[in-house]
Amino acid sequence: MTADQSVWNTPLTPLAFLDRSAKVFPERTAIAYGERRHTYAGFAAEVNRVAHALRGSGVSRGDRVAYLLPNVPEMLVAHFAVPLAGAVLVAVNTRLSTDEVRYILDHSGAKLLVVDAALHPTVAPVAGALKTVEEIITVIDPVSPGDGTGSGVTYDDLLARGNDEPLPWSVADETSCISINYTSGTTGRPKGVMYSHRGAYLNSFGEVVHSGHTFDSVYLWTLPMFHCNGWCTPWAVTAIGGTHVCLREVRGDVIWELIAQHGVTHLNGAPTVVTTILRAPEAVELDRPITITTAGAPPSPTTIAHAERMGFRIVHVYGLTETYGPYSVNQFQREWADVEGDERARLQARQGVGMVCADELRVVDAAMNDVPADATTMGEVVMRGNNVMLGYYDDPAATEKAFEGGWFHSGDLGVLHPDGYVELRDRAKDVVVSGGENISTIEVEQAIVSHPAVLEAAVIGVPDEQWGERPKAFVVLAPGQSATGEELVEHVKTKIARYKAPREVELVEALPKTSTGKVQKFELREREWAGQTSRIQG
Amino acid sequence: MTADQSVWNTPLTPLAFLDRSAKVFPERTAIAYGERRHTYAGFAAEVNRVAHALRGSGVSRGDRVAYLLPNVPEMLVAHFAVPLAGAVLVAVNTRLSTDEVRYILDHSGAKLLVVDAALHPTVAPVAGALKTVEEIITVIDPVSPGDGTGSGVTYDDLLARGNDEPLPWSVADETSCISINYTSGTTGRPKGVMYSHRGAYLNSFGEVVHSGHTFDSVYLWTLPMFHCNGWCTPWAVTAIGGTHVCLREVRGDVIWELIAQHGVTHLNGAPTVVTTILRAPEAVELDRPITITTAGAPPSPTTIAHAERMGFRIVHVYGLTETYGPYSVNQFQREWADVEGDERARLQARQGVGMVCADELRVVDAAMNDVPADATTMGEVVMRGNNVMLGYYDDPAATEKAFEGGWFHSGDLGVLHPDGYVELRDRAKDVVVSGGENISTIEVEQAIVSHPAVLEAAVIGVPDEQWGERPKAFVVLAPGQSATGEELVEHVKTKIARYKAPREVELVEALPKTSTGKVQKFELREREWAGQTSRIQG
Repeated sequence: MTADQSVWNTPLTPLAFLDRSAKVFPERTAIAYGERRHTYAGFAAEVNRVAHALRGSGVSRGDRVAYLLPNVPEMLVAHFAVPLAGAVLVAVNTRLSTDEVRYILDHSGAKLLVVDAALHPTVAPVAGALKTVEEIITVIDPVSPGDGTGSGVTYDDLLARGNDEPLPWSVADETSCISINYTSGTTGRPKGVMYSHRGAYLNSFGEVVHSGHTFDSVYLWTLPMFHCNGWCTPWAVTAIGGTHVCLREVRGDVIWELIAQHGVTHLNGAPTVVTTILRAPEAVELDRPITITTAGAPPSPTTIAHAERMGFRIVHVYGLTETYGPYSVNQFQREWADVEGDERARLQARQGVGMVCADELRVVDAAMNDVPADATTMGEVVMRGNNVMLGYYDDPAATEKAFEGGWFHSGDLGVLHPDGYVELRDRAKDVVVSGGENISTIEVEQAIVSHPAVLEAAVIGVPDEQWGERPKAFVVLAPGQSATGEELVEHVKTKIARYKAPREVELVEALPKTSTGKVQKFELREREWAGQTSRIQG
Repeated sequence: MTADQSVWNTPLTPLAFLDRSAKVFPERTAIAYGERRHTYAGFAAEVNRVAHALRGSGVSRGDRVAYLLPNVPEMLVAHFAVPLAGAVLVAVNTRLSTDEVRYILDHSGAKLLVVDAALHPTVAPVAGALKTVEEIITVIDPVSPGDGTGSGVTYDDLLARGNDEPLPWSVADETSCISINYTSGTTGRPKGVMYSHRGAYLNSFGEVVHSGHTFDSVYLWTLPMFHCNGWCTPWAVTAIGGTHVCLREVRGDVIWELIAQHGVTHLNGAPTVVTTILRAPEAVELDRPITITTAGAPPSPTTIAHAERMGFRIVHVYGLTETYGPYSVNQFQREWADVEGDERARLQARQGVGMVCADELRVVDAAMNDVPADATTMGEVVMRGNNVMLGYYDDPAATEKAFEGGWFHSGDLGVLHPDGYVELRDRAKDVVVSGGENISTIEVEQAIVSHPAVLEAAVIGVPDEQWGERPKAFVVLAPGQSATGEELVEHVKTKIARYKAPREVELVEALPKTSTGKVQKFELREREWAGQTSRIQG
């Protein structure tokens, strides 16, 4: 870039959002958590201090810094402080098992790990065995301080290493990596999805426009920040100077209390979040509307009707970790207001059209030709543009496969309606999407098969009212062995994250197989999803 | 860019906005003008056809295509069709004189000129003498069809050269030029400000966020599209699938009729537009609020109070042609709601802080150091970032001067308040900003001095309730000559655009000068602006 270009071409980065809001709204509440409050000035100051502290702790440009935290203020700070230090944020799913967390820390080559005291037991068993983590820093939240087994270095100790010398809220290359989000794919081990500063910046505007954020937004953090960086919302809500309301866990009573206390205007989450809110005993009709942006599975007709009656506005979006979270939106059409009941719900359940910042969305056949917009012909959903990941971290083969033909292959199969809206119908990959999180069926199968009584197992997703989908296992026991389904589920929970365990185990004599011995999951799915137009939820 | 990069890095261009809205809202009204309607599908189809027609008329990549049109649908089409053809739009101020238009056409090297039949008399005298224009195409608007002296080639003829083969809504290089907007600077001749696809795309989001556009926006075209490409609003409103309501001229009765007819939600304009609306005999209290985004001069306390009483919401922004129109915004702070009357108006009259997409805004001394935020120390307002022009077309010397030190120099002098808000106080350049348009005082002086009775003249801006500022001339007659002020004003109007003529001419014995003979406009301004904290309006 020439000197002249720097006048008119500033690399895009969400860091600029906090810079602006700290200057424009210094005294406004940026973060509310329990009794704690950060003003925007205080938020930016802590970010700046942590960035210095990370550098002072040996973090260099491009290094990975892992965070294993619930939705507490330190997690919001991380979304700015890590990139401000020139590093890459790895926000780890708090529900993973020790072994899964170790894999991610090792694979990402994280130099530092910041962990919530209550989650310390997850990492404690491997704390001394991590390949690259040089230091573990414990965040002690008085609300949930854990059992005191932290490493000894606390977040306060980290802060003490920082200083208040202002760092520039800028980045040299907008296509550099800002974060890596691990997600399960077809194979057992999760892959590290790389986001860029540019992609995060642009997707933030998409979130603002489609969720209808304004400078008065009060956003409740029901979506985990470790999930696709909370769909870029740490950056989006900061861009418009909104208030982030943090919470440790998604509980109906807490949510309703926070809605009343803070005048929440927006929240995001999987359909399970929506039902948790609607079914809470504390649920009341809203004084003023709240927009819920939801993904992971289409909201059911009942849910949409119920939510709207109570004063919620539902925005249904669809995407993957590889697309910074939401990529398409079920853009509401005015004429739908006159459509009744199930027919309207059917329209709103579709995954929709590309968001305003999402450039290209197609449904294609194996030769990458567009399928006809006939609501019948199935094809794979592929995307291209600024809201597609840079690739999988340290996995060029997987990246090449995902980007085959110059498009990102979602692995989701769907149809195109005559009005241009995409509707998903099935999944090419062996993945279950449960509460918005990917679960690899192969990973679950491996956990089951590790039980001595099991000969073989096949796992598929089955419809689940609360979670969209849940895994179901079909298990053949080894000759002469016995085990109950409950025993197998408990066994799985000792091996992998508990939320990945099958909802049910069906003991069968044999699995359906091809003549060459390959398990035909297709047949199992046919049976379980009988009577439904789709073989997936979302 | 490697093949891989094309998966995640789509060059930013506002062309993508129309592509999306035509797919998502094909039947929605995109443009309303009199009895005419374009759906979004029809809008995109016409754009595609005109792009083919331009190519078929000899327009090649990077060529300039000039449009001299009021705010009619063809002008909206031009904002997409010209870049879709790979060319650069030159939207010419419809109020300029023949000689001024000729200069712009020649300087930009425009290959084609599209002109409104009623404006044909402006170009007719030089139609045969233009250096590069190969063809003049006349738009015949039945509302105002002119006197039939068009060149013979009509817009329908142009359309007939097109076809409906879809062109790609994309651009190879996001930093390539999308348009050139001519603006008067200190020197007599206007300079061609170059906008990029990237800058136009990003600024569109800024307009959406700060004007509070939604997918239900109905935008009334009171701001000329030839002025900074209407602050990027042709692109911004299209991005969110809003309805563009066109009109030929800003008249109170017409505006109120269109507000009632279309349910207008937003409009933009200089303060003179606001007062035209408020003072129209047809003015009534609004059923639902309309957001007016205004720039060019701070709205007066009276205007703000009056507008709010009637149901308008005023968003005060500031910028220059060189910054795609608005760059800063008087971001409203919640606590101002409790501030009364003049004090609140004083807060809201300030030019404010950078918009969310505008990266950097400073007030600096001659050594480029920030002035203290003391509301007293004057400095020059400088900007840098994606909403700064690429430079002046074919004028590297002027570009270098404007970009001195790696920042765009606005030529506007102001102070920084302790809350970080910029307030303009004076102007370094000899420019009057009247109704949002720059008027070069030197140009006006030259027009006056061309009168045989005049010895010398000095022109400054003076406060004007309707226009923000208007030029005032101080004239010394030649010995033995006589002329009235009215005669001189009439003389000026034969030389340059009528709106540039002085509101008043004061005949004086001598002009204040330095010992070296340089006219001290400073002294004249001191006198005219006595009793005001600022020496400019906006």
